[in-house]
Amino acid sequence: MNLKIAALAGDGIGPEVILQAKKALNAVGLIFDHEFVFEDAFVGAIAIDKTGNPLPEQTLNLCLNTDAVLFGAIGDPKYDNNPDAKVRPEQGLLKLRKSLGLFANIRPIKPYASLLNASPLKKEIIQGADFIIFRELTGGVYFGEKKLNETGTIASDLCEYSEEEITRISHLAFKSAQNRRKKVTMVDKANVLETSRLWRRVVKKVSEDYPDIALDFLFVDNAAMQIILNPRQFDVILTENLFGDILSDEASVITGSIGLLASASLGKTNALFEPIHGSYPQATGKNIANPIASILSAAMLLEHFGLHKEATKVYEAVEKAIEYNVVTVDLNKDSKFGTNEVGDFISNVI
Amino acid sequence: MNLKIAALAGDGIGPEVILQAKKALNAVGLIFDHEFVFEDAFVGAIAIDKTGNPLPEQTLNLCLNTDAVLFGAIGDPKYDNNPDAKVRPEQGLLKLRKSLGLFANIRPIKPYASLLNASPLKKEIIQGADFIIFRELTGGVYFGEKKLNETGTIASDLCEYSEEEITRISHLAFKSAQNRRKKVTMVDKANVLETSRLWRRVVKKVSEDYPDIALDFLFVDNAAMQIILNPRQFDVILTENLFGDILSDEASVITGSIGLLASASLGKTNALFEPIHGSYPQATGKNIANPIASILSAAMLLEHFGLHKEATKVYEAVEKAIEYNVVTVDLNKDSKFGTNEVGDFISNVI
Ligand SMILES: CC(C)[C@H](C(=O)O)[C@@H](O)C(=O)O
Ligand SMILES: CC(C)[C@H](C(=O)O)[C@@H](O)C(=O)O
Repeated sequence: MNLKIAALAGDGIGPEVILQAKKALNAVGLIFDHEFVFEDAFVGAIAIDKTGNPLPEQTLNLCLNTDAVLFGAIGDPKYDNNPDAKVRPEQGLLKLRKSLGLFANIRPIKPYASLLNASPLKKEIIQGADFIIFRELTGGVYFGEKKLNETGTIASDLCEYSEEEITRISHLAFKSAQNRRKKVTMVDKANVLETSRLWRRVVKKVSEDYPDIALDFLFVDNAAMQIILNPRQFDVILTENLFGDILSDEASVITGSIGLLASASLGKTNALFEPIHGSYPQATGKNIANPIASILSAAMLLEHFGLHKEATKVYEAVEKAIEYNVVTVDLNKDSKFGTNEVGDFISNVI
Repeated sequence: MNLKIAALAGDGIGPEVILQAKKALNAVGLIFDHEFVFEDAFVGAIAIDKTGNPLPEQTLNLCLNTDAVLFGAIGDPKYDNNPDAKVRPEQGLLKLRKSLGLFANIRPIKPYASLLNASPLKKEIIQGADFIIFRELTGGVYFGEKKLNETGTIASDLCEYSEEEITRISHLAFKSAQNRRKKVTMVDKANVLETSRLWRRVVKKVSEDYPDIALDFLFVDNAAMQIILNPRQFDVILTENLFGDILSDEASVITGSIGLLASASLGKTNALFEPIHGSYPQATGKNIANPIASILSAAMLLEHFGLHKEATKVYEAVEKAIEYNVVTVDLNKDSKFGTNEVGDFISNVI
């Protein structure tokens, strides 16, 4: 197979971890005789520095004309702490998601057997947990109208959802449940929000097409509790944009490190793969960032193109790294291995 | 002291737990020679059943004309699973918060020494954690305009905040930090939301009045992670309505049971005290609900009126119950003690 992949390393540790994902894909290409061609482009704070635009035209065009996007991370404290900044790195990512129509963000959560002790949660709580979060990614309060009055004393954000936006991601979630343990849990705040009540109605309607799938509902406050109290109860979690953002970061603690979690963002014609961690500025350039989330994102890319054997190779190599304790300091505070060494080990095992 | 207290037991386990809170207050009254006069009124699903209105005029008037409100819980599954219901129990609570101007919800989180093993989190993670969440309670997406188009295919909720709404709760949070470990952590999503950016600006401004307090900021997704990874880092958390709802329920797992957590909701002239747990319909009438959250809410009521010695008595009695394992099944699955027995034990110790 021939794949043209846009590599958007972005900010902070992005470049370091994307490098490792490329290495892993190159190793896969060599063994299985695929050609992966990477084209680099800027996004985020670095793109603002270079062009004034967090998503330069050129980057967007590249992404629209490649088979897939491999994304690092974006974000820079100099913008976070400046509420008056007119341009911010995050706008690049949000615009990219919107322009590519990436409406479904898929985040699998499953602890590794040899890392059961790495989590702040007790082993008996997380053992056997295995769920996927389907987060709606191009709607809700992220993209609704934002206002600030002239005197700067009143601000607002609009959260809006349409039946169509809810329907398309719901089908993906139910289909995924059919290949799993056949349960979908919808998370919302239907006791307060009109959008949540629309979600409930639409998801119920969609569920009629999937009589083999059990559907239940949780309020988001309760869900935030249940994910820690009893993560094994979940199979597929389906939720809107902001709740998915919060719950998937929270759920990352189950695995012991957010540095292990990958995600796929899918649209009708485009696909983007990124670690769920952020740009982690404190670690930039120190060769300490965990490359596994990025490498696993590359594995999700392989799966997306039907390259299941190839993806399995990557998963196995990652498992071996973890088993042999060839991991970064987030997983083993005495580790002598850096981003590069872990990346090399994994590509060599592939 | 003479206090007239509106007792709004509400739905589900509300009546059972409120009864225990009254017992505790009566015990305090007897010893310290205070008179607490309770006036009962309906709210929530039971009020809808009786009057069609989740917050009957009579209940609201009572609350406006008492010294404080003791609140049980509201909610009923028959409304949760009906997205088309026109009236819902939660409206009663929201309208009450708004009408009484209860803009600050205060939720202390601190594990009990003898319950360190009851949490799904490892003992070494939660030991020494001790923080308070200040949740804004009468603004944000809870109270913004809600819309549903005529065809029922597009819904929206508006999240709105004004400088004034942010300022008043921020002062409370900073003042509280002055009596504690002198740190305020503001939680928002300023990289995406206009309202969050307003929060940041206003909180920074307010912080200038409190040079002795350290202020830092966390994005809500990161905060959802940090609360579990390292709860000891927090002293006072300050946040908007919806984030506060999610994070405080999540934080309840630190203590081992949501049945232990009390809250105070304060306005300029009114005050309401309620457990943070909900109506827990599955437990209703079974004498298994944990009354401690309600009893601790009563203790917060005492503190609010400057009755610190009295409140301390209640805290000590609760600690004794926990220490002697006179607790409900949520804390000890083999427990032989029910709601009533735990409540009796605590009032007797007082
Ligand atoms: C960087 C930020 C805008 C983004 C989001 O909130 O979606 C990130 O937290 C994520 O989850 O991908
Ligand atoms: C019942 C519900 C409306 C309420 C809320 O979301 O505020 C509850 O969850 C709470 O936290 O008091």
